[in-house]
Amino acid sequence: MKLLQDRILSQGQVRPGNVLKVDCFLNHQLDVELLDQIGAEFHRIFEKDGINKILTIEASGIAIACMTARHFNVPVVFAKKAKSKNIDGDVYTSTVHSYTYGRDYDITLAQKFLGPEDRVLILDDFLANGKAMRGLLDVCKQAGATVAGIGICIEKGFQPGGDELRAEGYKLASLAIVDSMDDDGHITFRPCTY
Amino acid sequence: MKLLQDRILSQGQVRPGNVLKVDCFLNHQLDVELLDQIGAEFHRIFEKDGINKILTIEASGIAIACMTARHFNVPVVFAKKAKSKNIDGDVYTSTVHSYTYGRDYDITLAQKFLGPEDRVLILDDFLANGKAMRGLLDVCKQAGATVAGIGICIEKGFQPGGDELRAEGYKLASLAIVDSMDDDGHITFRPCTY
Repeated sequence: MKLLQDRILSQGQVRPGNVLKVDCFLNHQLDVELLDQIGAEFHRIFEKDGINKILTIEASGIAIACMTARHFNVPVVFAKKAKSKNIDGDVYTSTVHSYTYGRDYDITLAQKFLGPEDRVLILDDFLANGKAMRGLLDVCKQAGATVAGIGICIEKGFQPGGDELRAEGYKLASLAIVDSMDDDGHITFRPCTY
Repeated sequence: MKLLQDRILSQGQVRPGNVLKVDCFLNHQLDVELLDQIGAEFHRIFEKDGINKILTIEASGIAIACMTARHFNVPVVFAKKAKSKNIDGDVYTSTVHSYTYGRDYDITLAQKFLGPEDRVLILDDFLANGKAMRGLLDVCKQAGATVAGIGICIEKGFQPGGDELRAEGYKLASLAIVDSMDDDGHITFRPCTY
């Protein structure tokens, strides 16, 4: 998606340790107009896949999921990273390792919100090693739900998560795939296939 | 807002300990059409207040903030509850006590996203004792930003947070104010003033 790639080139910041900061429009401050156009693009790619629910994980994914759900007219459900006293009843849980926060954490989803009748579009802002995505896929498997598609805003193509998911046959659409970036801020993108 | 109050009456669940569960449409599964109408209502109430930024706190507030920001055409910025390796530079921080999670936590906001030029609408899903809101107000004070309004989906009117903020002169609009609820599920709302 050229609009997103241009924004990454103009406002993204490369940090040591393969960190790409896009906090001024995607995951701290949110450019809602850009998110709406991202949602329209995900709808264009997945509109024929029978999506009836969008699944994401707090926190950054919620903005992308909501702005995309408007185009599909389906509900969003998001997995929680912390156990709340207010989650009761049966829950799906899966353990995820976060490189960003340097620890493992459990994600939780109330079972009543995901089941075998669901055809799910999983959305998130970043895909690198794919640890969080594996947790969301595990939750879908526990629910017996069908993963109809995976939509990612920015994939780090030099890390294995995305290519592993493609090799497994998932319909994975990443709107910007960063194949390389260096500490001088040079970023090269892989041509998009959708 | 009658639409939200009706939804609370039809789908909200009262739990012991003054817990009102609205996880099927507001803070776990998200009814995006309802959130869009909530955003339109916040715009109706605050459109003349010169809002140029919407501030919220992860995670549930992000959905409400994004769906409201569309109507104002302003950016959203959300305070983070966990310290990420990827937040660098100067940050505002404030300590908040969470009754839901039973602990204190620090909220963090990058200083570059909030300053004296901002007229802020603070949004969140719930207001009870107001501890999270105090943290967001503290961040605005540190930034020198003007708090032009506070918008809440569900206020627990039998807890002090909302009335304390009104007494301090804030323009606080709660779309549903629960004045009482009992374990039999009976809920009474305070008439809305906006």
